[in-house]
Amino acid sequence: MNFEIRPATVDDAGTLVRLIRELAAYERLEHDAQATPEAIRQHLFGPRPCAEALIAEQAGEPIGFALFFQNFSTFKCRPGLYLEDIYVCPEHRGQGLGTAFFRRLAELALERGCGRMEWTVLNWNEPAIGFYRGLGARPLDGWTIQRLEGEALELLAQSNPNTTRGV
Amino acid sequence: MNFEIRPATVDDAGTLVRLIRELAAYERLEHDAQATPEAIRQHLFGPRPCAEALIAEQAGEPIGFALFFQNFSTFKCRPGLYLEDIYVCPEHRGQGLGTAFFRRLAELALERGCGRMEWTVLNWNEPAIGFYRGLGARPLDGWTIQRLEGEALELLAQSNPNTTRGV
Repeated sequence: MNFEIRPATVDDAGTLVRLIRELAAYERLEHDAQATPEAIRQHLFGPRPCAEALIAEQAGEPIGFALFFQNFSTFKCRPGLYLEDIYVCPEHRGQGLGTAFFRRLAELALERGCGRMEWTVLNWNEPAIGFYRGLGARPLDGWTIQRLEGEALELLAQSNPNTTRGV
Repeated sequence: MNFEIRPATVDDAGTLVRLIRELAAYERLEHDAQATPEAIRQHLFGPRPCAEALIAEQAGEPIGFALFFQNFSTFKCRPGLYLEDIYVCPEHRGQGLGTAFFRRLAELALERGCGRMEWTVLNWNEPAIGFYRGLGARPLDGWTIQRLEGEALELLAQSNPNTTRGV
């Protein structure tokens, strides 16, 4: 395994955008990929970073990335590490890079006092699910993520307290 | 609606612990509730906060809380607001406090340039799911959260790069 995994720096903004676009194209979600070097610099390397990234290189060439941030468990009262995206360039798969990314993230989680690592998977992605089982992960069956965005988010923010109904 | 919602401060650490324990008891997960004032002070109000909280009060008495943090969308390249837990004391339900919490969080999300709000729900909790539909949220069907913790996380972090298999 002649690759290395290192933390991304602000100089990697362009590289990250290219890899994110590759991932989006691979998932046929190009229309959703709005990453720009400016936005990467602002949100990953600005005064208030909201995510971090690892980059894998082989002979100086970027061949994959992982993007993550810290989350928090109210009950455990401890931070956790949330893996938002991981991508290995197709021609570099099967060399252990996925495992190496997960191992490095597990190390980071423990170094930072995180009690757990979490991420999501598409239910039809059986190869990935099998890989995660092999790592010792378990699925949080019975839970569904809810998302509020766009016009619905704006309407809620602007709604009049006197006209909404309570729960 | 004679309540107010305000950001929690370090002086609320004890109040948050009490409300978190109430929530855990309500969910019959007391054994999972490890929150202490010290841990709240460290992780919410220390030099590197990983979550924030809102507290609802009525006549100066705390009657609910919401705990949240920022996450990040790789494709949108924008932060999001993730609601980890929300709790309204049973005797104060039906007064619009749940809606008021969600409205305040939507305002915060937009103020901070977040593109979306997310949270999870137990699939059997039909009243909550109906409430979320009314807010305009949509379920991310087809995705499952994976969690790696405890011994499995430690084993992965300590695993030997030369003995693991790749993907």
